[in-house]
Amino acid sequence: MGIRVAVAGASGYAGGELLRLLAGHPEFDLIAATAHSQAGQHVTSVHPQLAGLDLTLGSTDAATLSDADLVFLALPHGQSGTLAARLPAGVKVVDLGADFRLESAEQWTRYYGGGHAGTWTYGLPELPGARAAIAGSDRVANTGCYAATIILALAPLIAAGVADPEDVVVVASSGTSGAGRNPKAHLLGSEVMGDLAPYKVGAHQHVAEIKQATGAASLSMTPVLAPMPRGILATVTAKRRNGGDPREALQAAYVDEPFVHVLAEGVWPHTAATSGSNSCHLQATVDVDSGRIIVVSALDNLGKGAAGQAVQNANIMFGLPETAGLSVFGVAP
Amino acid sequence: MGIRVAVAGASGYAGGELLRLLAGHPEFDLIAATAHSQAGQHVTSVHPQLAGLDLTLGSTDAATLSDADLVFLALPHGQSGTLAARLPAGVKVVDLGADFRLESAEQWTRYYGGGHAGTWTYGLPELPGARAAIAGSDRVANTGCYAATIILALAPLIAAGVADPEDVVVVASSGTSGAGRNPKAHLLGSEVMGDLAPYKVGAHQHVAEIKQATGAASLSMTPVLAPMPRGILATVTAKRRNGGDPREALQAAYVDEPFVHVLAEGVWPHTAATSGSNSCHLQATVDVDSGRIIVVSALDNLGKGAAGQAVQNANIMFGLPETAGLSVFGVAP
Amino acid sequence: MGIRVAVAGASGYAGGELLRLLAGHPEFDLIAATAHSQAGQHVTSVHPQLAGLDLTLGSTDAATLSDADLVFLALPHGQSGTLAARLPAGVKVVDLGADFRLESAEQWTRYYGGGHAGTWTYGLPELPGARAAIAGSDRVANTGCYAATIILALAPLIAAGVADPEDVVVVASSGTSGAGRNPKAHLLGSEVMGDLAPYKVGAHQHVAEIKQATGAASLSMTPVLAPMPRGILATVTAKRRNGGDPREALQAAYVDEPFVHVLAEGVWPHTAATSGSNSCHLQATVDVDSGRIIVVSALDNLGKGAAGQAVQNANIMFGLPETAGLSVFGVAP
Amino acid sequence: MGIRVAVAGASGYAGGELLRLLAGHPEFDLIAATAHSQAGQHVTSVHPQLAGLDLTLGSTDAATLSDADLVFLALPHGQSGTLAARLPAGVKVVDLGADFRLESAEQWTRYYGGGHAGTWTYGLPELPGARAAIAGSDRVANTGCYAATIILALAPLIAAGVADPEDVVVVASSGTSGAGRNPKAHLLGSEVMGDLAPYKVGAHQHVAEIKQATGAASLSMTPVLAPMPRGILATVTAKRRNGGDPREALQAAYVDEPFVHVLAEGVWPHTAATSGSNSCHLQATVDVDSGRIIVVSALDNLGKGAAGQAVQNANIMFGLPETAGLSVFGVAP
Repeated sequence: MGIRVAVAGASGYAGGELLRLLAGHPEFDLIAATAHSQAGQHVTSVHPQLAGLDLTLGSTDAATLSDADLVFLALPHGQSGTLAARLPAGVKVVDLGADFRLESAEQWTRYYGGGHAGTWTYGLPELPGARAAIAGSDRVANTGCYAATIILALAPLIAAGVADPEDVVVVASSGTSGAGRNPKAHLLGSEVMGDLAPYKVGAHQHVAEIKQATGAASLSMTPVLAPMPRGILATVTAKRRNGGDPREALQAAYVDEPFVHVLAEGVWPHTAATSGSNSCHLQATVDVDSGRIIVVSALDNLGKGAAGQAVQNANIMFGLPETAGLSVFGVAP
Repeated sequence: MGIRVAVAGASGYAGGELLRLLAGHPEFDLIAATAHSQAGQHVTSVHPQLAGLDLTLGSTDAATLSDADLVFLALPHGQSGTLAARLPAGVKVVDLGADFRLESAEQWTRYYGGGHAGTWTYGLPELPGARAAIAGSDRVANTGCYAATIILALAPLIAAGVADPEDVVVVASSGTSGAGRNPKAHLLGSEVMGDLAPYKVGAHQHVAEIKQATGAASLSMTPVLAPMPRGILATVTAKRRNGGDPREALQAAYVDEPFVHVLAEGVWPHTAATSGSNSCHLQATVDVDSGRIIVVSALDNLGKGAAGQAVQNANIMFGLPETAGLSVFGVAP
Repeated sequence: MGIRVAVAGASGYAGGELLRLLAGHPEFDLIAATAHSQAGQHVTSVHPQLAGLDLTLGSTDAATLSDADLVFLALPHGQSGTLAARLPAGVKVVDLGADFRLESAEQWTRYYGGGHAGTWTYGLPELPGARAAIAGSDRVANTGCYAATIILALAPLIAAGVADPEDVVVVASSGTSGAGRNPKAHLLGSEVMGDLAPYKVGAHQHVAEIKQATGAASLSMTPVLAPMPRGILATVTAKRRNGGDPREALQAAYVDEPFVHVLAEGVWPHTAATSGSNSCHLQATVDVDSGRIIVVSALDNLGKGAAGQAVQNANIMFGLPETAGLSVFGVAP
Repeated sequence: MGIRVAVAGASGYAGGELLRLLAGHPEFDLIAATAHSQAGQHVTSVHPQLAGLDLTLGSTDAATLSDADLVFLALPHGQSGTLAARLPAGVKVVDLGADFRLESAEQWTRYYGGGHAGTWTYGLPELPGARAAIAGSDRVANTGCYAATIILALAPLIAAGVADPEDVVVVASSGTSGAGRNPKAHLLGSEVMGDLAPYKVGAHQHVAEIKQATGAASLSMTPVLAPMPRGILATVTAKRRNGGDPREALQAAYVDEPFVHVLAEGVWPHTAATSGSNSCHLQATVDVDSGRIIVVSALDNLGKGAAGQAVQNANIMFGLPETAGLSVFGVAP
């Protein structure tokens, strides 16, 4: 018998992707999935792509989830704290929400409002020292989707002294699934197809998380909603330091990583190549005109940016092969 | 050591999807992949979604392929015959092209032109008797993508006497990957986005294949190019016979099938739910105004319509579990 | 001073397109536009594409509208009757809703529910005799979007005795703006991009309107939501009668029409070529296999299918050049 | 009789948009349109959206064009010089290519290769002093599409001393029509839908033009291909100077402009709202974290970025109302 896992908040896009990955996982047995307003429905009413999976959504409460060895929380920001506190200590938890990502209560309140629930182990395994910390934790805070994209691009460059942590400039575009499944007029297909729309300019909540994980001192971030269901493309620029080679710094950081690929020289990442996978593609250059380092990072916001990342963390927490149940390869075209 | 497999014609979209599936298959070892003008290139230059797969494309000749236990041919129509003839008898072959699908040489010449290469076992396992035939064959002709979509919808209704084989009317829309990877002006993103464009109206080559496999006597088919990379949605209508229930006929035909799902009553298939999977979704009703049966069928043209179907056939040919290396679940949104 | 016009229900997609057309119309002066929940907002808050138009939305009541010489009603189905009854008799009205399209109260109740408001002159000028009727009317019921697409394809063929009015089969795909602007989960960009989704299969409310205007005796219609903001593509098939030539029948019907174009032989309509215009593109053939006539019709559901059609009707009602303020040419790519 | 105009290079996307605009222009009479390999074809074979326009494409030579009062050149970069030299001196010319935009022959050769053809009046009317120069010129070099988007955002801020001309960082995404109509594999719909793909990172040829027109001293530009046919969204960031207010500087620069709209505070431009129009939408803020100015600029690359801009220039050259034949309003959704 495998490891018993449950998903709280299974009706959203990250929740659906988690169910897809868990249904195909060799070691995890999906024993429960819960929802709020859609509790009681068959999973295929909510996620028609899961036709063939026989599962009814339960209601999101601690009792339904406590039989599991591992619970994934895919709840709206601010709702994980209360539920997590009611789960037995022996149940391992990966939280896909923002509640436990930040070390600073002040930063939490600034960006999310309300009280800070606490700080869990930050679940980005490719950061130095992160694997051991995750392996030793029962509670892990999964990264934000923009944050994962940008941190993987920036952290090694600042750590290696190649990029100046001051005055980092980021423009990152996301597919619409990153905006969630609540019906809002500006997210209608009629509005988003054929459109690029910036939002939260200079005020995105992932800035705090990115600075915490990379050591960036100041960072301007412009998020843009792009006309595609999945994918994030981040362009990260920083002033070059010490004449360092940014591509070499990325290669050194990720040479042994199964999911982070520094592409062949001159080949730039694009989002479609990562769709449906847990991979992140990276490339870097030095801009001929300004001398700035430009790094481009691409991943699937529901994959390495959310559900795939969560499964990778869970694999580490249970001592499984890190790639179990995950795909390195994108579904393209 | 696993079963050694090779892919001829790996640079196209069906070839790329085959490589993705084979790279994750538990029993097949991918030993070679070949191409024409892109021979000699690393696979990731051609399929960037396969970053992490270390493979260089060889040239498409019998010598490169003869070491394999199984060869997939994903070549342009008309090119499989010559190559297949040069492969050793002991090598099993699945042809994704049209060369060996038709029993009638006259129909072949009418729709494809040139001489007919021959007839292999038709590789749609869900047809009555097909599994045994495929299991006993060394050479299998994979279905066409439109053909698979339409045959799965229509064959059981004609067989059960519920649908009249005369005057079947089909309108089917396909994502652009079905039109291949050769650069043509009308397939540019600028042209296809925001556009629905019919083509080969009343003259599509799959009509012969569909009639052969379903027993339809006359069939009008209008194919439409749709603004999405993957997926086929077919609306199949036929006159109702004997007051039969089309949904029951579909359910009876597919009750034990892992990849063909008759959806809950009133729920209609849509393509995105099948994307990246080997599943086909079906629903049927009787039109209130005309009394015609309407069946809607959805699948991924590169999955159940091409590469996934080919792997399913290969699994049967080697006595493996039919679902090995394939996903029932779509990647959505 | 020009003709004073007002738009009731200006916050939806058809309403926005009306405002765009009216703002550029040489004879109509836009004096008021009203909305329900968005009354009081500047028009650019609701329709950012109208930046440069200085207009605040009023509330939808008869008082606001009665100063106009002409009122366009772009309200949800069932709401036009009450408002129209309160407008002065001297105010001309074009209703973009369904309330006054049907002659049969029984059909109205079957498809829309509730009581039938009445029957106005049917506003499709290209139908025989329609121009004179529209010119002589103060109240005109604009066509439905699917209805316009299909009627323009089918009416001349039945009238000329080329197509059998029995057993017409239609599959028609629409861009998402046809589904309106109310936020619903299945209309989110994440859901509709990459997807084709049938709905109201065999039960669409436009069937009654199409039969009334064409003389079709029975008609099976499958509507499909397509991943694009605008456009309808209808494939209309019917049994051929008397060996007639469907393309010649279309050409004869539309030879003098400025907005209906029968394309060069062998060239098939596609939606993008009509986007933003008031044009409808048509082509027809006889299917080689079944002998059925296949007609394909394309138009912009917000143009010739709604707002453009309404302006064309209004031009006729005021004795203006029929093309005033309208474009024959699509915005493509 | 109106002003006789001709279009050389009418088969591409900018050429098609020019034909659409000129066919509806109140003062310009379209007397000829030429092409290279498609000379001799009816215009609707090349631009099906122009159904209803009776015009056959001529061949691109001086004789065909010399009867015009005004010639638009929409040729591949590097081909305008030779043709322009052969046109009579009395023929006014607007060149949509890059040949005559740059003052520096050295910069021309660096970015485009080959010899520099010369320098014409730079055709961006909203720049200080530009209108008078354009009105007095017989030869005008239209802006590049990225260049127009970025210059309109940046020039007033540097001129007003609000933005530091050093270390400007730009990320700009374009719809695929900006990449032209030549069939290339990476521009296929299957590739671009669902994808964001950077290219020419740090090496785009418009950098020289932007620096020339804005006074920017160093500028890093990352262009990205976005999954939509039309539109450019540019995010332009620069260090703030003197505590200035970037939004006020934009408002001061554009208060009287018909086509450049600084949106209401807090409302961000998005591309769809400008589609089909000659408008540019702008917004600016100061980033809370980095103190950088962030300006976002949106326009239609075929409108204000190419054909619309060219018509605006031509209107000025002939003393016509600047908005003649152009729309301020976008076609949305």
